[in-house]
Amino acid sequence: MNTDVAPVRIPPCSAQAVELGMGDELVIIDPEGQQVSDVVAFGHPDDAEYLSSGRSLDYAARLWLTAGDILYSNRSRPMLTIMEDTCGRHDFTLTPCSKETFEIIYGESEGRPGCEGNLAAALAPYDISVDRIPIAFNVFMHVSIDTTTGSFRVLPPLSKAGDFVRLRAEMPLVVAISACSAGQSNNFRFKPIDYQIVRNSV
Amino acid sequence: MNTDVAPVRIPPCSAQAVELGMGDELVIIDPEGQQVSDVVAFGHPDDAEYLSSGRSLDYAARLWLTAGDILYSNRSRPMLTIMEDTCGRHDFTLTPCSKETFEIIYGESEGRPGCEGNLAAALAPYDISVDRIPIAFNVFMHVSIDTTTGSFRVLPPLSKAGDFVRLRAEMPLVVAISACSAGQSNNFRFKPIDYQIVRNSV
Repeated sequence: MNTDVAPVRIPPCSAQAVELGMGDELVIIDPEGQQVSDVVAFGHPDDAEYLSSGRSLDYAARLWLTAGDILYSNRSRPMLTIMEDTCGRHDFTLTPCSKETFEIIYGESEGRPGCEGNLAAALAPYDISVDRIPIAFNVFMHVSIDTTTGSFRVLPPLSKAGDFVRLRAEMPLVVAISACSAGQSNNFRFKPIDYQIVRNSV
Repeated sequence: MNTDVAPVRIPPCSAQAVELGMGDELVIIDPEGQQVSDVVAFGHPDDAEYLSSGRSLDYAARLWLTAGDILYSNRSRPMLTIMEDTCGRHDFTLTPCSKETFEIIYGESEGRPGCEGNLAAALAPYDISVDRIPIAFNVFMHVSIDTTTGSFRVLPPLSKAGDFVRLRAEMPLVVAISACSAGQSNNFRFKPIDYQIVRNSV
């Protein structure tokens, strides 16, 4: 990891968008441990191409992706390669929580935007509307499945302070990254997420 | 099931789109057994609202949905309720196969459109482009998961001839329904799918 690049902090319960050129690397870091980051990606400038969990899982023939796996687009093209992964457990089946998710799952009424709203706000300058936020690559999210019934539970992340995933952009992208707002996912401690970008594209 | 309504046949390796009013019921039938049908749904006329596996799985806290479960939209509103299910095993994690999927998974070069292309052709009159085909509710698709590794295998469907799922529309919808084109999903016998619509909306 290129340590010349200072990490950027995403404050708790918020999100940021970054542009990556082909070959650029994005490192997503859990600075305190047990925090989740929802990551979505769109082609840039052709944002009709987007991160597809359905394609990525199908090609890996595995629910849980890690170093060496590729995150594909809806058009079956590689978007991001997982170059390094010090945690090893992430989710790629669930959509980012929204105000409605908090109402349905947690009975909340205060209308927090959730990662979906935060990612949409970060993507608003790119004219990507909230309806187009797909299933995210939920970095560090720990979903445990009972294969007899298919029931699952969202458990505290396995990530420890300093754990990271390093992703390489395989095409020009806009990527939005959140610091998770959902108690069940981050063990009810709403923490920041850090990221670094290593610019290899020219 | 209202047996006054004659079933409609979807020929092998093709798809059809139907409009449903709120309260209408759509019965998807496997006439010969071991065939899969990829089902996607969009709000009608507001097709920015679409079937969301991520939402539906999150609210069910279960990977495999069956009778009593609700298929939600990206806006967290109920789109379809599973009223009856004589098979009990379906997938809701994978995207419909495309030409590229057949190239990557099967090494095919003949360029068959797959369920994605067939669903997109059926949805073309509604101006819903292929890029917007989401993860489908893959009726009768049998995905078996190893929870230690997260690896999965696509196995022959558990459906027998005559098995069906009965879905009730909870809002006005355009639904596209395919007869699966992927050998791994239908045990390498490309068969038709039947459906019936029971009109309860006025």
